Amino acid sequence: MERKRIVSGMRPTGKLHLGHYYGALQNWVRLQEEYECFYFVADWHALTTEYANPGIIKESIYDMVIDWLSVGIMSPESTVFIQSSVPEHAELHLMLSMITPLAWLERNPTYKEQQQELREKDIHTHGFLGYPVLQAADIIIYKAHKVPVGVDQVPHVELTREIARRFNFLYQETFPLPEPLLAETPKILGLDGRKMSKSYNNAIFLSDPPEVVDKKVAEMFTDPQRVRRRDPGNPDICNVFSLHKLYSDVDDVEMIDHDCRTGKIGCVECKKMLSPRVIEFLAPIRGRRMDYVNHRDAIEEVLAHGNKHARAIAKENLREAREAMGV
Amino acid sequence: MERKRIVSGMRPTGKLHLGHYYGALQNWVRLQEEYECFYFVADWHALTTEYANPGIIKESIYDMVIDWLSVGIMSPESTVFIQSSVPEHAELHLMLSMITPLAWLERNPTYKEQQQELREKDIHTHGFLGYPVLQAADIIIYKAHKVPVGVDQVPHVELTREIARRFNFLYQETFPLPEPLLAETPKILGLDGRKMSKSYNNAIFLSDPPEVVDKKVAEMFTDPQRVRRRDPGNPDICNVFSLHKLYSDVDDVEMIDHDCRTGKIGCVECKKMLSPRVIEFLAPIRGRRMDYVNHRDAIEEVLAHGNKHARAIAKENLREAREAMGV
Repeated sequence: MERKRIVSGMRPTGKLHLGHYYGALQNWVRLQEEYECFYFVADWHALTTEYANPGIIKESIYDMVIDWLSVGIMSPESTVFIQSSVPEHAELHLMLSMITPLAWLERNPTYKEQQQELREKDIHTHGFLGYPVLQAADIIIYKAHKVPVGVDQVPHVELTREIARRFNFLYQETFPLPEPLLAETPKILGLDGRKMSKSYNNAIFLSDPPEVVDKKVAEMFTDPQRVRRRDPGNPDICNVFSLHKLYSDVDDVEMIDHDCRTGKIGCVECKKMLSPRVIEFLAPIRGRRMDYVNHRDAIEEVLAHGNKHARAIAKENLREAREAMGV
Repeated sequence: MERKRIVSGMRPTGKLHLGHYYGALQNWVRLQEEYECFYFVADWHALTTEYANPGIIKESIYDMVIDWLSVGIMSPESTVFIQSSVPEHAELHLMLSMITPLAWLERNPTYKEQQQELREKDIHTHGFLGYPVLQAADIIIYKAHKVPVGVDQVPHVELTREIARRFNFLYQETFPLPEPLLAETPKILGLDGRKMSKSYNNAIFLSDPPEVVDKKVAEMFTDPQRVRRRDPGNPDICNVFSLHKLYSDVDDVEMIDHDCRTGKIGCVECKKMLSPRVIEFLAPIRGRRMDYVNHRDAIEEVLAHGNKHARAIAKENLREAREAMGV
C-alpha cells in the first residue's frame, strides 16, 4: 500500500531550541515511519514578518536543516527542501488568491493575534494577510493528505481545506482535502516561564554546549512563592519540574515531587539533578550537528535532492491545476 | 543610444473593439517607433474578475493577439507575450506582497470603483485586492522606464513607483521608478452613448464585417432631443458626430456640424455618410486579421518568441531582486 503524504514547514528565523523539538520536530521524526514526508524551509513565509531584515533568513536556513537532520529527519527517505527553490508555490499562491475571499483571511483567528504579538513590526501588509493562501499552496501543490500541526494551527488547515474545496468546486476535482494531524506535545516553557522563544532570550538551543546548559538551568525561574530553602514548593507551577518530567525517570520525578512539596530538596539541588540529563539528551544531537557543520556539502546534497524531487511533483500538480483552471 | 523600455498589458476578456483601439492600441502602435516595447496578454489579471468563468480567457488570447498584430503591433520588434508564460511575475508578486502595506491597496481609487461596477461578480478576493501588486511586478520585472496608460490608470503607476521605491529603500537600488506615459485619446462611446464595452453589447469590433458595421451605425443613438428630421440637432452631444470627427475629413465635419444644427441633414443621412468610412478604416485591419486567422502557426511563433525573450529578461531581473532581498 502506498504511504499517505504529509507536508510541513518551518520558518528559518534562527537556531532551533527545545520548544521546536517538542512542539514539532519530535513528531516529524516519528511520522517518518508511517508517512511519505515533505519537510520544507519556509523562507517566503519568514519574509511575511522579517521582510525588513531578511538577513536572518538566509543565515538560518543551513542551521535549521542541520538541526533537523541532527534530531533524526532522514534524507532521502523524507524530502527536505527550500520553499523558494520551488517557485511553483508562488504561482499556485497567485492562482489561489483569485478564489480566496478576503473575509476568510480577515477572520483567520491568528491574524489579529499575531498583529498584537508582533506590534514592534509593521506587518499590515498584503503578504501577511495572505500567508494562509501561501500555506494552502504549499500543502496542496503536493496533494498532501495530512498536515502535522499544533492545535493553534488547526484553523489554517481548515482554511486550506476551504480553498482546495473551492478550487475543486469552481473548476474540477484536483486536490485532496488535507486533514490536520494532531500530536500530543508536552508544553515547553522558557527559562523565565514564558513561552520558549528566541526573541524572549529564554531558550535552551539544540546546539547549546554543556556549560551553557548548566548556566541556563541554574538561572531558571522556579516556584516564585518559594523564597527560602526550607519553604515548601509547588512542582505543578515549576518550570524545572516540567523538564524533570521529560528527562528524569519516573522514580526520580516522584521523589522530587514529594521532596519539593515538603521542602526537603532545594531548587539549586533540583536543578543540579536536571542539568546533566538535559546535556545527556542533547549530546547525540550535538554530535551529529558537529558532523554536519563540518560537512556542509552533505547538507547541500540533501537540499539539492529534496528541491529537485519536490519541484518535479509540484510542477506536475501545478500543470494539472492550470489545466483545470484553463490558464 | 539605447531606447527606453515600456511595458503594457491588456486583459483577454473578449474580442477587441474601437474603444480598445483608440484607448490603447493606437498609442501602442505609435510608441514602437521610439521605445522598446513589451506588450503582454494579462491572463492572470483577467482571473481577478473572471475566475468563476475562466473559459473566456483562454478563448480570447489568440483573438486578442491577432487584433494586436492586425492594427500594427510588430513582432519581433516588439515583444508580444503571455503573462502566465513568465511565472517569474508570480514570484516577484509574492515577494512584493510582503512589503506592500494593505492601506496602499485599500485606498487604491479604482478598487472601490470596480467593486461597485462589477457588483454581479464576487470580487472581494485576496487576488482582486492585490492586483496592483501583480501589476507592479509585471512592470518592474522588466525594469521598464515608462508605462503607457490612460488617465484613470495613473494611480496604479504611482503605486508601482511606491512599491519599487520601498523595495529599493529596504534592500538595495534594484528597480528604476517607472513613469506613466499619458497619451491624448479620443473618447469613444458605444452605440448607446455609454462607455464602449463588450458587456454593454454596444461595441463596434475590429473584426466586424461591413454589413455588421452598417447595421450597428444605423442603430446608434444620436441627440435624444432631436425627434423629427427638421429639428435642429446638437453635434456636441451626438455619438455619431464624435465618430465623424475621427473618420471624416475636416470639411465634411464642418459641414455636418453646420447642417445638423440647422436641421439640414437628418440622422439617417449622417449615419449613411459615416458607415462606409468606418468600414474603410477597418478594411485593412480585417484583411490582416483574415491572414492571421488562417495562419495560426504565425501567431504561435510570435508568442513563442515573445515568451522566450520576456522570460530571459524576467529571470535575470528576478535573480537580482532575490539577491537584493537575500532570499
